[in-house]
Amino acid sequence: MPDTNVMLRLLISCEDRPGIVAAVSGYLAESGANIVRSDQYSTELGGGNFFMRIELTLPSGSYASFAEGFGMTVAEPLHLTWRLWDAARPKRVAILVSRMDQCLLELLWRWRRGELDADIVLVASNHEDLRADVEGFFSLPYYHVPVPKDGKPEAEAKLLELLEGNCDLVVLARYMQILSGDFLEKVGVPVINIHHSFLPAFAGASPYAQARERGVKLIGATAHYVTEELDAGPIIEQDVVRVSHRDGIAALTREGSYVERAVLARAVQLHCEDRVLRNGNTTVVF
Amino acid sequence: MPDTNVMLRLLISCEDRPGIVAAVSGYLAESGANIVRSDQYSTELGGGNFFMRIELTLPSGSYASFAEGFGMTVAEPLHLTWRLWDAARPKRVAILVSRMDQCLLELLWRWRRGELDADIVLVASNHEDLRADVEGFFSLPYYHVPVPKDGKPEAEAKLLELLEGNCDLVVLARYMQILSGDFLEKVGVPVINIHHSFLPAFAGASPYAQARERGVKLIGATAHYVTEELDAGPIIEQDVVRVSHRDGIAALTREGSYVERAVLARAVQLHCEDRVLRNGNTTVVF
Amino acid sequence: MPDTNVMLRLLISCEDRPGIVAAVSGYLAESGANIVRSDQYSTELGGGNFFMRIELTLPSGSYASFAEGFGMTVAEPLHLTWRLWDAARPKRVAILVSRMDQCLLELLWRWRRGELDADIVLVASNHEDLRADVEGFFSLPYYHVPVPKDGKPEAEAKLLELLEGNCDLVVLARYMQILSGDFLEKVGVPVINIHHSFLPAFAGASPYAQARERGVKLIGATAHYVTEELDAGPIIEQDVVRVSHRDGIAALTREGSYVERAVLARAVQLHCEDRVLRNGNTTVVF
Amino acid sequence: MPDTNVMLRLLISCEDRPGIVAAVSGYLAESGANIVRSDQYSTELGGGNFFMRIELTLPSGSYASFAEGFGMTVAEPLHLTWRLWDAARPKRVAILVSRMDQCLLELLWRWRRGELDADIVLVASNHEDLRADVEGFFSLPYYHVPVPKDGKPEAEAKLLELLEGNCDLVVLARYMQILSGDFLEKVGVPVINIHHSFLPAFAGASPYAQARERGVKLIGATAHYVTEELDAGPIIEQDVVRVSHRDGIAALTREGSYVERAVLARAVQLHCEDRVLRNGNTTVVF
Repeated sequence: MPDTNVMLRLLISCEDRPGIVAAVSGYLAESGANIVRSDQYSTELGGGNFFMRIELTLPSGSYASFAEGFGMTVAEPLHLTWRLWDAARPKRVAILVSRMDQCLLELLWRWRRGELDADIVLVASNHEDLRADVEGFFSLPYYHVPVPKDGKPEAEAKLLELLEGNCDLVVLARYMQILSGDFLEKVGVPVINIHHSFLPAFAGASPYAQARERGVKLIGATAHYVTEELDAGPIIEQDVVRVSHRDGIAALTREGSYVERAVLARAVQLHCEDRVLRNGNTTVVF
Repeated sequence: MPDTNVMLRLLISCEDRPGIVAAVSGYLAESGANIVRSDQYSTELGGGNFFMRIELTLPSGSYASFAEGFGMTVAEPLHLTWRLWDAARPKRVAILVSRMDQCLLELLWRWRRGELDADIVLVASNHEDLRADVEGFFSLPYYHVPVPKDGKPEAEAKLLELLEGNCDLVVLARYMQILSGDFLEKVGVPVINIHHSFLPAFAGASPYAQARERGVKLIGATAHYVTEELDAGPIIEQDVVRVSHRDGIAALTREGSYVERAVLARAVQLHCEDRVLRNGNTTVVF
Repeated sequence: MPDTNVMLRLLISCEDRPGIVAAVSGYLAESGANIVRSDQYSTELGGGNFFMRIELTLPSGSYASFAEGFGMTVAEPLHLTWRLWDAARPKRVAILVSRMDQCLLELLWRWRRGELDADIVLVASNHEDLRADVEGFFSLPYYHVPVPKDGKPEAEAKLLELLEGNCDLVVLARYMQILSGDFLEKVGVPVINIHHSFLPAFAGASPYAQARERGVKLIGATAHYVTEELDAGPIIEQDVVRVSHRDGIAALTREGSYVERAVLARAVQLHCEDRVLRNGNTTVVF
Repeated sequence: MPDTNVMLRLLISCEDRPGIVAAVSGYLAESGANIVRSDQYSTELGGGNFFMRIELTLPSGSYASFAEGFGMTVAEPLHLTWRLWDAARPKRVAILVSRMDQCLLELLWRWRRGELDADIVLVASNHEDLRADVEGFFSLPYYHVPVPKDGKPEAEAKLLELLEGNCDLVVLARYMQILSGDFLEKVGVPVINIHHSFLPAFAGASPYAQARERGVKLIGATAHYVTEELDAGPIIEQDVVRVSHRDGIAALTREGSYVERAVLARAVQLHCEDRVLRNGNTTVVF
């Protein structure tokens, strides 16, 4: 690929009907685009909802006219919901965390190794514990936003000041505070959370203690988009690890932490590559 | 090992305290037993409940005096709950099934290959569908015990007639009927069920539809001892398989069936090798 | 989807260059085709080899003209290697087996349950052991083709008589004979083998004994297309299972058999859905 | 457990014969020891080699007399190979690394979280790249020991100076140098290496390139004790991850790195808990 090309990701969702793929790829061919990867999915054969993700390259300089033309001649007539993302522009990611470091460090190490298709713009926490790691080692800004009892509205306001307009994604990397529906609406970008259980099992508090109590033989972790209802948003990624009767809560917490960090990192990476589309309360992951 | 030896499995549970292992293994040494495998577990360091499983060989002919002596000189003074099982005597297993064949065939096929440490004594079903497989292919007795609406008590009575005294274990291999507490008490042997979800997620009816609705990225199966409370008994074994947005309920049902049959077969084998001890509503699996 | 439609699978491979997707999907749109699923892959960004698989529906009756037109107006000008398969026509599959039943029965059970997108046309074996299962229970033809020492050419000739023109795929379900290059050429259809190791580890004889000797902590199975070089053909599917020092060769053989049968069944299913394309000595699996 | 107790690990290997367990546990009972966990394994039923690992607690102050008495009254008469390790004394671990940080950081991060039952005493590398991480983030000593062409003997001598008498274990966390047999002998403690393939597949150089070339569907990593023969020592732990045709060498390297670090960390932890016994060129892992 000549480096004068731009790489774009085109995401489409709409009601399914014949001709969509042809209209889209016809426009792409006329525009001199080369399709690098294409995925599509219909919820029903010959109907339902249609989802599409295309990675394409365009001759340099043609981005604006390509986007404008696509909107006018394809998307509008066919009533497509769509977005276009320049693959050269990494998502700006803000991370909220409390005291546990496993998910935060996993994201920051991957980011440092160039394995996360993202710019980490800031870390904010309701505790001071992880400041040295974030500032001292990764040279990233760290904001301490305490959440005193009865002080959540003020804390959320302060967080919004930090986040609004500065990020494309908020990641809750074991942030042990419930965000209000008002906050979620105002922040205006997707929020991904990691819950330390195989949802919908063991939603809510102390999932490892719940798992120990129930005597399950596998424990898991779930990364999902945050919605107003706790631990109930669209699931992006899950995984599990085998445990036994010998594993007390400390061992479950330790083994679970390895799953949590892997699941959250994969989910963030999938999101940053624009590979996740929402379908009601579920996701399509290409 | 000279074939004049007998192989026994000794299972012990009690309150933990020092000296149990020494007393047990001292008695074994005096009796000329050879310990082939030994596993133990304490729920707390230096306290809690203690569980032990020993595979041992004894000189032929010494079984009765060994058992008697163990009871008098070890188990009674130390207040042990214990049982002894002759490994040469396979568990007698009865299987209840409805219409779906995956779990039944897996068990029968492993049994035919000599991979299940069990004698299958009968198959009973509330439907006729699987008679040809059971009788024709595996040459096992098949009993049709229909469960008409409002006829459950009569059906359970008929099942009890078939089962009482004839089996050491009842396996529900996708038996789509809820057994009453009264039945469970009267049958007098453990009952293992396979539930087609990763419990405690998606208990109850239609777990694959529930899984599809929730948009989980893994589906699972759970083998557990049956208690009066539905899908809530002690878990013996669980496993999962990865699924995607493309998998409709038919695909989830198919992929799930492969997990169900593997999980149930492993749980039955573990039970038949006396490797599962109950600890309240959980299990210790050695 | 109106049932007057036909569902086709279109498979394409060629050198990659811009415009292929547009030409293909343009032709599909003109033909009234609806794309149900589409996958594509290029070995290099903007170059290398290009592979595509499209599931599409066509108005009834238009198959022949669609195929003819595609060849003339798309495939020929663009130098595409391509084939079209009517999804309503299951692949005709012949199975070769020796004495071990695990892989054969897995395929036959799945086929009986309607889970294998194939017609099993015959089973042939160099032993008589599995005749009763195949004929008696599955009502499929069973041919005994012994392979005496120095009698391989005659045996292969007899097999060719059975297979030529009668099947679209040959599956070696633990067929413990090496087929000659001459046979592979004459049979004229793909041949899939299951090898009971995680290739390229433990190629050749007695892989479980080799695995035990080496002390590996996982054992595996590999389904691959057969080529003249033993155990060296393009890999379609692999999987593994955890083992321990306690597992002797008998246990490895038993646990391995569960992996073998799952891996082979998945590979056969993938092939029968036209989801496997060869890329030199590797595969692209959509 | 009163904190005046000491926790010990007793490891035994010998030819199997009746009475060993009884002699050992009899001595433990007389000594006032409490057995917390016990595992045993015989390579053959009633013969072969016998391996045992016991976690026990002793009254404070009785360690020396316990050890002495065990040697005289149990180990010597029964010809046991044995060792005793005070669980309160973490293994002293030295890590050798080249440029890649994944395995090193995983070990250091688990160590910082208190999840590794070890004291990291130093990190040595043939490159300077990771000094800032080791010294700055983890406050551990970092030694640069370059290995110029033809300078290996001098480099090994320098390493031996650093290591001799200072560590109980050497870990090669992607140390891209082959250590001589002479070094291995002189260093006098076990050396664990991580190889980035599922051994014995893809031993030697560039295993990810080899894996890509062969078209495998899973890639893996193997942690093993280092012996003079390259990549051929006793395997402690292995794991794999699923890959596809889409994964080029960069993706295999990235996904493989997550497996490498997990496998090495688990192997080091198993070793540090004295759970690995060598059995010829294989391991028994309790």
